[in-house]
Amino acid sequence: MAVISKSFDTLSAFGKLKSLAASPFDLTAPGAISSERLGKYVCKAAGYDLLYSAQRIDEVVLAELQNLADESEAVSNFLAMKKGDILNRIEGYESENRRVLHTACRDIFSQEPINIDATVQAKAQLNNLNAFVSDLDNGRIVNSNNESFTDMIHIGIGGSDLGPRALYLALEAYRHPGRKVHFISNVDPDDASAILKNVDLTRTLVNVVSKSGTTLETLTNERLVRAAFEKAGLAPEKHFIAVTGQGSPMDDPQKYLRSFHMYDYIGGRYSATSMVGAVMLSFGLGFNVFEELLKGANDMDIAAEEKDIRKNLPLLLALIGIWNHNFLGHETVAVLPYSQALLRFPAHLQQCDMESNGKSVTKQGQKPSYNTGPIVWGEPGTNGQHAFYQLIHQGTTVVPAEFIGFRQSQHEDDILINGTTSQEKLVANMLAQSLALAAGQKSDNPNKYFSGNRPSSILLTDRLTPYAMGALLTLYEAKIVFQGFIWNINSFDQEGVQLGKILANRILGHFGDVREKKPADETDDPAGWALLRTAGLLDL
Amino acid sequence: MAVISKSFDTLSAFGKLKSLAASPFDLTAPGAISSERLGKYVCKAAGYDLLYSAQRIDEVVLAELQNLADESEAVSNFLAMKKGDILNRIEGYESENRRVLHTACRDIFSQEPINIDATVQAKAQLNNLNAFVSDLDNGRIVNSNNESFTDMIHIGIGGSDLGPRALYLALEAYRHPGRKVHFISNVDPDDASAILKNVDLTRTLVNVVSKSGTTLETLTNERLVRAAFEKAGLAPEKHFIAVTGQGSPMDDPQKYLRSFHMYDYIGGRYSATSMVGAVMLSFGLGFNVFEELLKGANDMDIAAEEKDIRKNLPLLLALIGIWNHNFLGHETVAVLPYSQALLRFPAHLQQCDMESNGKSVTKQGQKPSYNTGPIVWGEPGTNGQHAFYQLIHQGTTVVPAEFIGFRQSQHEDDILINGTTSQEKLVANMLAQSLALAAGQKSDNPNKYFSGNRPSSILLTDRLTPYAMGALLTLYEAKIVFQGFIWNINSFDQEGVQLGKILANRILGHFGDVREKKPADETDDPAGWALLRTAGLLDL
Repeated sequence: MAVISKSFDTLSAFGKLKSLAASPFDLTAPGAISSERLGKYVCKAAGYDLLYSAQRIDEVVLAELQNLADESEAVSNFLAMKKGDILNRIEGYESENRRVLHTACRDIFSQEPINIDATVQAKAQLNNLNAFVSDLDNGRIVNSNNESFTDMIHIGIGGSDLGPRALYLALEAYRHPGRKVHFISNVDPDDASAILKNVDLTRTLVNVVSKSGTTLETLTNERLVRAAFEKAGLAPEKHFIAVTGQGSPMDDPQKYLRSFHMYDYIGGRYSATSMVGAVMLSFGLGFNVFEELLKGANDMDIAAEEKDIRKNLPLLLALIGIWNHNFLGHETVAVLPYSQALLRFPAHLQQCDMESNGKSVTKQGQKPSYNTGPIVWGEPGTNGQHAFYQLIHQGTTVVPAEFIGFRQSQHEDDILINGTTSQEKLVANMLAQSLALAAGQKSDNPNKYFSGNRPSSILLTDRLTPYAMGALLTLYEAKIVFQGFIWNINSFDQEGVQLGKILANRILGHFGDVREKKPADETDDPAGWALLRTAGLLDL
Repeated sequence: MAVISKSFDTLSAFGKLKSLAASPFDLTAPGAISSERLGKYVCKAAGYDLLYSAQRIDEVVLAELQNLADESEAVSNFLAMKKGDILNRIEGYESENRRVLHTACRDIFSQEPINIDATVQAKAQLNNLNAFVSDLDNGRIVNSNNESFTDMIHIGIGGSDLGPRALYLALEAYRHPGRKVHFISNVDPDDASAILKNVDLTRTLVNVVSKSGTTLETLTNERLVRAAFEKAGLAPEKHFIAVTGQGSPMDDPQKYLRSFHMYDYIGGRYSATSMVGAVMLSFGLGFNVFEELLKGANDMDIAAEEKDIRKNLPLLLALIGIWNHNFLGHETVAVLPYSQALLRFPAHLQQCDMESNGKSVTKQGQKPSYNTGPIVWGEPGTNGQHAFYQLIHQGTTVVPAEFIGFRQSQHEDDILINGTTSQEKLVANMLAQSLALAAGQKSDNPNKYFSGNRPSSILLTDRLTPYAMGALLTLYEAKIVFQGFIWNINSFDQEGVQLGKILANRILGHFGDVREKKPADETDDPAGWALLRTAGLLDL
């Protein structure tokens, strides 16, 4: 199935939305946020409600957003992706030329998966993992003292760290009794030291995750941790697990207790539901918990196939984001979860969104005339209210906000103070922020004046369960992918990280030369960093 | 000493910088980043080097930035602040009308402190704290089983959480043996539950921090934790410590083992070096470590008094920020520490900067015609390189970056791999990123093309010691304050957080009414949130 890519700025909806943006819906008008509007602007999927009445949109804008989705063939592209089209490419230029099949990792509940081959591979890995975790549970795999493993150190960076870590922290309430996971990602040696000082290595598994098997930080940290095991007289091959691409330099079963595979059709930032997240989450939370997460993830993937934008939550969220970014001109988007467990979810989204859509080249190799991906940032509420919300309410920059909330808490340890629970206080604050941003407040004191018309949405579900977390993860994956389709860019490569790597290796060459007392070759130092070293500024 | 505030856009430097911004220094020109430039554009203070050659500035721009500093009387304002002028005010309107004396907390090393009264108060609190910590160290204060206290739960939010927590995490390498600190901030009940499940309450102190003594989240969490102590049969007044404003509702020595005071002339986001941070840090790291931090903090405060911008690191950083934000038009700034220990420092800066300068009213109550504070965000490198750096290098938005790096690691557990240490890899990556952003790369493949001219600075010092952390903290405090002076806004209040609080209380009223079965009064619900509750969307 070949999908034709059309340039965003040539679509008829583009021009119409440009015109409509001159006078967007006024949220501050008396009665603007009516009960009727609140009830009408709700979209449902996989247990979530998206409340979008506090966006600067109306029926006319929604109709044009539907046209934008139709003209850009957003849903057809999404289906083509699920089926296995080669969407990771730039036409006419050297590029990765790969399929994009992260959705296949969770398309395991149907008799007729959309891409059979990829789902078969995913299921085979899941079966291996299930067997491994059962062996841990049942004491068939133990350490050299016949003790069970209590801890896991997960070593990975970028997509092999942010998504899996965000999921683990979100679901720690569901932790397997007696097990704990630690994370090492940064090449900063202090990151590893801090962890190694605090675990009992004899009862620790180490999960090393690198798709390419060549990631500098991960290999460096693996070496550092292996050295610690050897120093403690422990055999690394009885503690270390590998998650890597089949045939990568790390794919060496001799060196590992177990090896699990990922495939080239899953990009790092979309890999949390592959073995990249699965091994650690199944150890730390249990295999059943991970399966629940996959169920939620898959249900949201299915919801994303709907053509009507008012019934397709990820697509609607994507279109509202484009309205705010390209038409109302807001450079950033804040993701504000009202749940401390989602502490690291915004950091995962920063990667998933900004690495996917922070691009300046269309799928045809042209320079786009419009802005692509926004800057994504955020922290949990209510904490953020006591931090940066001042600017969101009264700054000279407008920040569209995406609130995420839950009707019930995870632990249900809660108490009634002044007639309400903590969870009620949390949700009430989230609703109040959305309303305050939208409606604003008139005042004769210019310091107490709130302009209003600052747009936000609220994503609401019952509780942050494994199912809900899976659905939230893939809701944002699909949102990001939809935006990339509409902007006509390749959301699946990351050429922008290469130049820094090349230059880092060059500078490391200098550092190595200095250690070996070779004279530094200044002529090979186009930026003159050697001078700084000579001047003592960089003396390491 | 009365300082005259002049409107930013009426300064002669404003117009000149506007003109200069039409053709900023081209970092991509051959030889642009010369050895000479690298050596010349370095500014030093309190052990730090600011390398700013990768900014789009030249001698002419620097001269106008000096004029901007002079015309806006930035340094005179800073001195007036230190002396105790009432700078927290809006002329002609109801406002807080307070002095701003956070610098007095660390002006304790001189025989002639700039504001004697505030420093005398700070020293008195420090002496009380020193005595308390000595009693803990020497076993004169113990729990009811005659055991020493091993853990502290720090309860606070916003300024009572972010700064202190960032400092503790940054300096955990210097932790007092056998002691550990935990933090509860969010009103999310799961935040408290997760902590309470993991500490031995019998050996735990609880440090409750609220300047006003009325912060909803903090009082709620205090109640929750008190309930846990009572349930465990422990007397809270033998475990709980209060840090609060003198005379606040929380200032009740009967209820606390010890009480420490802060004063109305220190704003929350500038309070990390007051008792707000001091009590927890002196417990967790030791009183001497905290004193070292104050020394670094004070040395940077002194460096900020210099009139020559090329010798005043905080002022130079502030002016470069204004050049990028107001003249080159970049909405955000990324703070990118190459140190995992600084994981939460960007979150602290988000508060300190965005709550201070996210304003739309001048000191005279006018609406400014220019942008005030930027959006501040960031994550540690090298992690960020594998996440959002794609957009920073190749996105359609330019993000000025502030890198922070260290020549040596904290733990010094490091190994040589491929001829270089992990710390060298870390620093090499930081330098390479700065260079890649500036110089870019030409390519016939549009996907491998890097535009360059993306500005960044590097802050470099030897090691993340307590002294260096103190200096870094106050470097940014001073930077933020300088920008506020130049933008002619009040960086010390936060009226923008009030509206959300009022609306949250109104919504909580509804939730309470529902529990008590009173009919909800729809007429008192201007936003119609009651409808959502009725529709089951908000059923808690």
